[in-house]
Amino acid sequence: MIPSGPELREALAEAGADAWLIFEFHGLNPVARRLLPLSGLNTRRLFVLLPAEGEPVAVAHRIELHPLTGFPGRVLPYSRWEELHAALGTIVAGRRLAMEISPEDAVPYQDRVPSGVVELIRRLGGTVVPSGALVSRFASRWTSAEAEDHRLAAEILAAVAREELARAVGEAGSGLRETEVQRRVISAATARGLVFDTPPIVGFGPNSANPHYEPQPGQDAALEPDQVVLLDLWAGRRLDTVFADQTWMGFAGKRPPARVTEVWETVRRARDAAIATVQEAARAGRPIAGFEADRAARGVIEAAGFGAAFVHRTGHSIDRDLHGSGPHLDDYETHDDRLLLPGVGFSVEPGIYLAGEFGVRSEVNVYLGTAGPEVTPREPQRELIVAD
Amino acid sequence: MIPSGPELREALAEAGADAWLIFEFHGLNPVARRLLPLSGLNTRRLFVLLPAEGEPVAVAHRIELHPLTGFPGRVLPYSRWEELHAALGTIVAGRRLAMEISPEDAVPYQDRVPSGVVELIRRLGGTVVPSGALVSRFASRWTSAEAEDHRLAAEILAAVAREELARAVGEAGSGLRETEVQRRVISAATARGLVFDTPPIVGFGPNSANPHYEPQPGQDAALEPDQVVLLDLWAGRRLDTVFADQTWMGFAGKRPPARVTEVWETVRRARDAAIATVQEAARAGRPIAGFEADRAARGVIEAAGFGAAFVHRTGHSIDRDLHGSGPHLDDYETHDDRLLLPGVGFSVEPGIYLAGEFGVRSEVNVYLGTAGPEVTPREPQRELIVAD
Repeated sequence: MIPSGPELREALAEAGADAWLIFEFHGLNPVARRLLPLSGLNTRRLFVLLPAEGEPVAVAHRIELHPLTGFPGRVLPYSRWEELHAALGTIVAGRRLAMEISPEDAVPYQDRVPSGVVELIRRLGGTVVPSGALVSRFASRWTSAEAEDHRLAAEILAAVAREELARAVGEAGSGLRETEVQRRVISAATARGLVFDTPPIVGFGPNSANPHYEPQPGQDAALEPDQVVLLDLWAGRRLDTVFADQTWMGFAGKRPPARVTEVWETVRRARDAAIATVQEAARAGRPIAGFEADRAARGVIEAAGFGAAFVHRTGHSIDRDLHGSGPHLDDYETHDDRLLLPGVGFSVEPGIYLAGEFGVRSEVNVYLGTAGPEVTPREPQRELIVAD
Repeated sequence: MIPSGPELREALAEAGADAWLIFEFHGLNPVARRLLPLSGLNTRRLFVLLPAEGEPVAVAHRIELHPLTGFPGRVLPYSRWEELHAALGTIVAGRRLAMEISPEDAVPYQDRVPSGVVELIRRLGGTVVPSGALVSRFASRWTSAEAEDHRLAAEILAAVAREELARAVGEAGSGLRETEVQRRVISAATARGLVFDTPPIVGFGPNSANPHYEPQPGQDAALEPDQVVLLDLWAGRRLDTVFADQTWMGFAGKRPPARVTEVWETVRRARDAAIATVQEAARAGRPIAGFEADRAARGVIEAAGFGAAFVHRTGHSIDRDLHGSGPHLDDYETHDDRLLLPGVGFSVEPGIYLAGEFGVRSEVNVYLGTAGPEVTPREPQRELIVAD
């Protein structure tokens, strides 16, 4: 629902703003899609002002007033661009406005407003400040129903991953291809009621060292004995709810070499260090930002001498978008100083990628529910899945 | 393909830029999708520099280098944000860069770069100018195969619209509902090989006066005698080619009242005035901007006393997106001074909307092919489709 009342006032005061100004045009701002009860075509510029005091105001094109039926406030329609500027001027002049911006693109997920729109707001007398904390609070938090959808998806994915990895690692040398494992995973999870938006990642041997590898039919690898097997899968109960996103690791032999075991143990410890940091902050009642959890995981990997091989952030926000609008666990690709507020969820997925050899990633999700940080699935992977 | 060579040099010189800098992140810039041979996941920031002199340069995240396989130039990989800034600094400092910006959001379709990214480029020593003319030239022009797809779709849509409107207007008073006509249109066009991304608009009587009306099952109107019927339909041979987009008008009776006929004739003349303006400019070899064609159509409607009832622009760019990245026929919602360059296409669709009564829109498309402006379908609607 549209944020309002004391919670909005409090959040605006914390953000140093008089109002939240949400801009939307052709889907460029996921926050608008999340917060506003928009339906139908949205092909013209829409501004929605949520002030600390007074009623909400929408500035909307006359041919697209229909999606605003039931809007809890005033609607200022425009047709000509001069009318748009005039209407906008009346709501922004002299105000401090929180918008989806991020100075110098520090957090690109939060940097959603085109430069010309910010110029226009400023020329009309508004001051623009980042809305990051408002987005985490109102757009990225899971509902309890979404948390339940996520938990269910998480347990199904974990069961499927365990089963299909155990099956695959026993078939080395048989010609088993990456796309066949992909197909089996989709089939097994779909049979248990999940939907995918994208096929899972399955990487054998050196392909596991490419963090975003996607097997292509006809060009995918066949599993050789003693290869590492990486399975990264994300799916949910519906496309419009919160997905689960996990990575599981297998080894196509009975005894992984010491180097594989060392890398696996390092990644697992890094994953658990990030989780522990979030849990300790929650126990102490201390606010914690996304970048701190990244540092905890990265510290473990750097201390083990693999720092240069951990080439991505530790985790990403998960909400109705797999790469969500909330805080990421990141002090690497960005310095994400947004707080891990109650109600948000994210992935924890450190990895070590040794080009030409193999890669290892372990991924679970964390939901900051009312009972504190909750890790999904309930039983994260402890040991590599190896051949019988 | 990626623009290069003398044509790029000429276009950059016209735009007053040393290079085109294309920014992409999570699909926010349709121009990137069009011009760059990207495949696979694109979840991190990507910058591609196309300079007037020298080879192209891509700045891409290490985990997403794969989509750049075969990139015809240098690739500068980054992982940490400090590396991104350093790499970007080497390619933007001291340069005049054309980007997808539009001062004060004058043309929102061209305003694609988040404010934080423009701030960053400026801080790193670059000067940013709008890339509008480059986009029209390289991203919005149709290929000859796309023009052929469009022509074929246009003739099918015209035939389906004529047939289904003729059938519908004969069924007034029978309980025929808007969603049933919608279903018939989709079925007929699909049977002839077209695909829809969105159902067509079907509006009976007063519903036709809402330019973006969408009939909802269970809440849609049943056709009464002597009502106006509006059918706006867009579809194509595939989702990834150029669609056709047309609006056709019917009247559910034998003799439309004078007011309906007057409005229809006015709209038709407005449509033909816009087309004539484009054709005359082409014959004279005179460059013409989108806003000029809007003025031609709007002038006819204003002169007839219906100016206040024409509440949208005259037409929109059509390319692989239905609302494309090229010039629109618009001096109303925006002042679109981008030129109607050879190879682009657009809709021509003036309308008059009389709230509570009825609305009339007539829509054809124009492609600026090598033989001059080409109107599709070949036979635009001349007369209202009425009951036998």
